[in-house]
Amino acid sequence: MSSIVKCKFSKCLNANSLIEEARNLGLIPLPKNQKGIEEILMDMNIKFSPFTEEKAELGKKLYFEPRLSKSGIISCNTCHNLGLGGADGVSAAIGHRWTVNPHYLNSPTVYNSILNASQFWDGRATTLVEQAKGPIEAEPEMATPAKLAVEKISSLPEYVNEFKKIYGKSGVTFDNIADAIANFERTLITPSRFDKFLEGDENALSKKEQEGLKLFIDKGCVACHSGVNLGGNMQPFQVANQYKFASLGDFKGDENGLVKTPTLRNIAETAPYFHNGAIWSLNEAIREMGSTQLGISISNKEAETIAVFLKSLTGEKPKVIYPQLPASTEKTPKPQL
Amino acid sequence: MSSIVKCKFSKCLNANSLIEEARNLGLIPLPKNQKGIEEILMDMNIKFSPFTEEKAELGKKLYFEPRLSKSGIISCNTCHNLGLGGADGVSAAIGHRWTVNPHYLNSPTVYNSILNASQFWDGRATTLVEQAKGPIEAEPEMATPAKLAVEKISSLPEYVNEFKKIYGKSGVTFDNIADAIANFERTLITPSRFDKFLEGDENALSKKEQEGLKLFIDKGCVACHSGVNLGGNMQPFQVANQYKFASLGDFKGDENGLVKTPTLRNIAETAPYFHNGAIWSLNEAIREMGSTQLGISISNKEAETIAVFLKSLTGEKPKVIYPQLPASTEKTPKPQL
Repeated sequence: MSSIVKCKFSKCLNANSLIEEARNLGLIPLPKNQKGIEEILMDMNIKFSPFTEEKAELGKKLYFEPRLSKSGIISCNTCHNLGLGGADGVSAAIGHRWTVNPHYLNSPTVYNSILNASQFWDGRATTLVEQAKGPIEAEPEMATPAKLAVEKISSLPEYVNEFKKIYGKSGVTFDNIADAIANFERTLITPSRFDKFLEGDENALSKKEQEGLKLFIDKGCVACHSGVNLGGNMQPFQVANQYKFASLGDFKGDENGLVKTPTLRNIAETAPYFHNGAIWSLNEAIREMGSTQLGISISNKEAETIAVFLKSLTGEKPKVIYPQLPASTEKTPKPQL
Repeated sequence: MSSIVKCKFSKCLNANSLIEEARNLGLIPLPKNQKGIEEILMDMNIKFSPFTEEKAELGKKLYFEPRLSKSGIISCNTCHNLGLGGADGVSAAIGHRWTVNPHYLNSPTVYNSILNASQFWDGRATTLVEQAKGPIEAEPEMATPAKLAVEKISSLPEYVNEFKKIYGKSGVTFDNIADAIANFERTLITPSRFDKFLEGDENALSKKEQEGLKLFIDKGCVACHSGVNLGGNMQPFQVANQYKFASLGDFKGDENGLVKTPTLRNIAETAPYFHNGAIWSLNEAIREMGSTQLGISISNKEAETIAVFLKSLTGEKPKVIYPQLPASTEKTPKPQL
């Protein structure tokens, strides 16, 4: 390994050694099926609800269901837009009655989020089932108390039947709503060329991308952006220096000053960056992380090279047929705008 | 015909005569392909842009493209939700910065809207190309001046290439953006059992539904709700009596006091009803129309029977794969919230 580190990248970079190095550092390819996801979740000691296609299909409807919001016009997909890398492209999330997220927090991508060890910027949830409930209930987001969410969904016979079929007697509950959504989100996995590379396909990444990966490793980015998601775990916030936009919003990490490291998968599609979405350029974001987290200076050219690698993490998105939602009935609680 | 009118519905209702009567009154089935749509548009003397799959595919992206809004979070699909019968399920549309439509106007369904003789409640556009520009530019809706829309789309190379390929030299223009969207909307046709019935399948509607259709004709609803869309044309507003919620919002029809008759296709999915979305019950809406437009009293039971027919107009929706949108670039104008 040391001989590779010393040499001047692309000239002597050996793809096989790089693959080995990356895997030794804990970078692993995306699982190929739901069984593979479960194995990773078990390894991470994360509880999960057993996957079924029926749950995922119901969850897809609920994911696109604006009636889960108090207003009837905001769905999970509003802020975690499957067409926009699973995020919304604005600095801080906009919710009910156009409320800017009170902590000025940026919406993270939903893609591959099942594989995060922690959910939310402060990691206060570990499962997507727990996570899914948060934005539905949060007053500045979808603003729907659990009871109202259940009332709304229970007013739609098509949903009631599906819940009964899938969840038996318990039927429509807030837990089951979140469980179905989480099951849909489990299907939002985006394999990329990087995964092929990790699986041993030396040509899956160009020489320039391999060079970027090597720099990504050597600069120390991989220390936090590790694991199957190149992130998703809790890490100290502002290790070496203060983040230059730290004053925007009041987020200071969790009670121990930790922050969830965002996944780098699809990062080229999910600007703006950081918890408060203050940085729009990937290059600038890389350099800022060098300063903030690693206490090193990453040159513009180095950042460019790392960015070339990061772009190889843009994955193939699953085909999602836009769901047809059941028509409201006279029992459906009216939108509250 | 008169013998049928006199008889007591289902007992002596002859499906074949009913089909003939309906067709004689101008109720015609949905076209089966784009050529059929063009024939209808030519009959109605409506200009149209020649359809291509490529335009429709590009238009689909733009239809779901929130960056066409100033904020970056509102797309055509926000108010014309393909999962909710092509509408939004709220009384008056909510737009940029949570602005309620200043005239308190309800979002009409996008499904089959290509076949409307008029667009907008006041019929101020006749083509969907014209129509599509309205909400993008309107300050209380998507709030994006044409110039900004073009700037945003032009900042995304994938779009630029597609526009060049499809529209040649003119490339990304506001007209071409609207044209592509209109071409996608041309694919949003929803054939229903009623169409099969009109095509001659006597069993496509139940006896009860046929009875509802007969009442729909005999009560005079068909006078305005005619043609392929059972609506979509301009008609006098509040012919016999004032609409009971007329004071909600300031809409009074166009300069001649005319209002666009909404299509009845998928009407069971698109509550609330009327230009200001003040009535949530289909039954109540039917009775209100009897009073307002026809100057007759429609009983609760009759309204129920008509509603049974109207539900047969709920059509099969085309399968729409949720589009992947190009990633923003550093040139992309930032969201303005």
